[in-house]
Amino acid sequence: MKKEQQATAEGILFTDQYQLTMAQLYFHLGIHEMPAQFDHFFRNYPDYGSHQAGYCVNAGLEWLVDWMQEVHFREEDIAYLRSQRSRSGKPLFSQAFLDWLRREGDFSGISLDAIPEGRVVHPNVPLTVVRGPLAMAQILETPLLNQLNYQILIATKAARIRAVGRGQLFLEFGLRRGHDRGANAGARAALIGGADFTSNVGISHVLGFPPKGTHAHSMVQAFLAMGMSELDAFRAFADLYPDDCILLVDTIDSLESGIPNAIKVFEELRRKGHRPVGIRLDSGDLAYLAIQAAKMLNDAGFEDVLIVLSNELDELTIWQIIEQISQEAPRYGLDADRLIGRLAYGVGTRLITSAGAPALGGVYKLVAIQKEGQWIPALKVSETMAKTPTPGNKNVWRIYDARGKATADLLTLEEEDPTQWDRIVLVHPWDQTKRRALMRKEISELEPLLTPVLEEGRLVTEFPPIPELRKRREADEARLDAGVRRLVNPHIYHVSLTKKLFAMKKELIRAVTMVGQ
Amino acid sequence: MKKEQQATAEGILFTDQYQLTMAQLYFHLGIHEMPAQFDHFFRNYPDYGSHQAGYCVNAGLEWLVDWMQEVHFREEDIAYLRSQRSRSGKPLFSQAFLDWLRREGDFSGISLDAIPEGRVVHPNVPLTVVRGPLAMAQILETPLLNQLNYQILIATKAARIRAVGRGQLFLEFGLRRGHDRGANAGARAALIGGADFTSNVGISHVLGFPPKGTHAHSMVQAFLAMGMSELDAFRAFADLYPDDCILLVDTIDSLESGIPNAIKVFEELRRKGHRPVGIRLDSGDLAYLAIQAAKMLNDAGFEDVLIVLSNELDELTIWQIIEQISQEAPRYGLDADRLIGRLAYGVGTRLITSAGAPALGGVYKLVAIQKEGQWIPALKVSETMAKTPTPGNKNVWRIYDARGKATADLLTLEEEDPTQWDRIVLVHPWDQTKRRALMRKEISELEPLLTPVLEEGRLVTEFPPIPELRKRREADEARLDAGVRRLVNPHIYHVSLTKKLFAMKKELIRAVTMVGQ
Repeated sequence: MKKEQQATAEGILFTDQYQLTMAQLYFHLGIHEMPAQFDHFFRNYPDYGSHQAGYCVNAGLEWLVDWMQEVHFREEDIAYLRSQRSRSGKPLFSQAFLDWLRREGDFSGISLDAIPEGRVVHPNVPLTVVRGPLAMAQILETPLLNQLNYQILIATKAARIRAVGRGQLFLEFGLRRGHDRGANAGARAALIGGADFTSNVGISHVLGFPPKGTHAHSMVQAFLAMGMSELDAFRAFADLYPDDCILLVDTIDSLESGIPNAIKVFEELRRKGHRPVGIRLDSGDLAYLAIQAAKMLNDAGFEDVLIVLSNELDELTIWQIIEQISQEAPRYGLDADRLIGRLAYGVGTRLITSAGAPALGGVYKLVAIQKEGQWIPALKVSETMAKTPTPGNKNVWRIYDARGKATADLLTLEEEDPTQWDRIVLVHPWDQTKRRALMRKEISELEPLLTPVLEEGRLVTEFPPIPELRKRREADEARLDAGVRRLVNPHIYHVSLTKKLFAMKKELIRAVTMVGQ
Repeated sequence: MKKEQQATAEGILFTDQYQLTMAQLYFHLGIHEMPAQFDHFFRNYPDYGSHQAGYCVNAGLEWLVDWMQEVHFREEDIAYLRSQRSRSGKPLFSQAFLDWLRREGDFSGISLDAIPEGRVVHPNVPLTVVRGPLAMAQILETPLLNQLNYQILIATKAARIRAVGRGQLFLEFGLRRGHDRGANAGARAALIGGADFTSNVGISHVLGFPPKGTHAHSMVQAFLAMGMSELDAFRAFADLYPDDCILLVDTIDSLESGIPNAIKVFEELRRKGHRPVGIRLDSGDLAYLAIQAAKMLNDAGFEDVLIVLSNELDELTIWQIIEQISQEAPRYGLDADRLIGRLAYGVGTRLITSAGAPALGGVYKLVAIQKEGQWIPALKVSETMAKTPTPGNKNVWRIYDARGKATADLLTLEEEDPTQWDRIVLVHPWDQTKRRALMRKEISELEPLLTPVLEEGRLVTEFPPIPELRKRREADEARLDAGVRRLVNPHIYHVSLTKKLFAMKKELIRAVTMVGQ
């Protein structure tokens, strides 16, 4: 794609056609500027097959806002829309609508509240609440979902990998397997979710992180093809990077060739007063090879150099590697915890694509419109109560129990203030027989989660740098019940409605269903 | 991400850090401009779990070349690299290397041969062959893999959906679930692979397709919230789009409300001389609902309006829907084939993410370097012969049998010319006991697959528009054996080496393994 094409394809036309045809309908009905509210939320945690997540990590907001503030309907976009034809051959879009788009076609009328990036989030809770003129809020649906869904997905996967890796160095290596330019958003989300660094140079630059890497097989191959050896290749690399030397040892054979050659080069570095950094294992049984490598490195007096593992890693594989080392290392005379403590993980494909669950089913649903100054709840009645979004303007509260652990997220009507209540009844979002009551004294904190981000297009928050987002995530994770954090078959975190909100939803379903009949 | 940040993150720094550190190593050894050849290929067809693909569709090349021709190391990129520090605190990159990058740091020295976009392709066959100065060819690895792997993946998935859908209208709807900006590349690849249109407005504009869509639930909801009805919403939509009217019928209840209301509006359109286009079903048992919808529409005299299906479709789901309709439609007095012939498919999440196999394991391997004018094969000896790339400069031929069907792809040494042979022996790429011989008279055509794309950075081919790429794909699919095209458990297409090439690979493995010991 050429640069000028990219400007078109990533501008305000980065949306679905039906958003534009609906916007035109609203325009011709005169309701295009009627205030409307859309909620963005997801219905289910990513399910990677055998091991569904128990929580997600919010991400993507800053870049979405950057995009919203940059795009508008340019003359070229208008000209393109003018060229579109109905099946009848007539123009699909009217001149009046196009004139309006040219004048008003940007997101400067949109207000947006959101749960901040880095926060732990759960299903059926509005993460992003959009209020603004119906037509522009409608057009925003597709680009908002595109940009938020993916970053939440990857931040969540990264958090799982972080959690299982016992805090060891965790590198994002997925650029070559990411989905085209989306890999940049994936790298950012991985950093929020818990990757320490990424190999992606450009995005590291943009986000203020040093990019990380080792070397590839091709370097060793080039030396071999020139009639030299793996040892020559390692030596040349160590000469140039004496203080940053991580050697990839599996181009020929890890145990027979790569590790012995790495040790020779490390000894040379040590003699010159440098500290070798590590080796990388990229094929074979990584747990077994890590044990063998540790033994060989220890015998040579390199007890602290890193053993970087890569090759199709994900949270389950890392978990199994750690398990295997825990069981097997002692048989080889090694301290398992010490060995695990020198591992590092380079995670590529399965992180950047969220393998097993490559999409988050985030949706963007109309929940209210304003008529004569009054907000009126709107509803989509799906085939199941579970898929029916909770209508109306709402607040979101996180309830912490006496231990300080998050015990539920509570959706309330906007005018309800649970901080004033002695007793809070939590109602399941679609099964009113499931409810529990919490007394005020059982609650250590009631935290509102939504914060204003845009007020009529104006930024009213600051987007903190990624290290701050990580701290938020870590703080939230620390306040999750251990059962919710479990890697496999986690305990289900409660998301609940107040009795009044449940009653309103039920009444509206009844009314809409009657209207339809 | 801000625009200026995007220029950095999607410029020449859209690569992995180790490519730069290796490039610097080559520079300091004086081999950075040594000609090198890298082959891009994949090792396995995408495996969606229960149903691995039997062929892939090549895609992505034009956009890769656009990118290669646009990027170079800008002053800002150089300044960033200059700021990077070793663990010792010293600059990681030398001034001499940065000066070279500033002068020579672009892809104008790269030559590239490739199998054209739209062609059917198979594992272990070089799809893209890069020759050029070692350092820049190395830096190209990551962006090349990023851009080609994903488009091949999606073109392949789209081809499967196309094949199962019996040629019915097939719309790409995945923008909201694609991986950030990567969704644009996905939409392009889907169009190459067989989607008729996409809902993505910007990419439709860029590629010269009319974008397609219907309307969303939110339109009906907005009417309900304003105290009006689904019928009012449909009527308003039909008034504005009388010749393009596709109505989404499941906001309230498809059978009880949506379809009857759609029929009322269609009758009004008919009275005014318009032809209604279709309805869309987006939830529930789509096969059952399609049958019921067809009955209701037929009874009202709308036997030709489309029934568009959407909601988590993929090739298996579509196959099952068609199967179910084939069995069930007659019980309702419907002609199954006629009903299947009025279906259309809107495919979103599972296409744009290639659900089940969200990454293609494409790799980029050094296969030869040039020393004193002589190409020397290079090899990576992996743990298995199957993962060891075929070294050296090669040609790729597709062999068609007497029926005109493709029977094998053959890799030869560059100097071998199989068109001159009476008998061709096809050797399995890693098991020399598996071989078969073809006599010249059994062969209807021997087609060379690689064509020159770039000669030292200069474009020497034309990139045809997408309809041409589709014709290529269709022609190739028609020449595949039916067994290879099978959706589940396809017959394995043969990819073979000549005896000489196999012998060279084997000898090189022996030599490299000895050097390593």
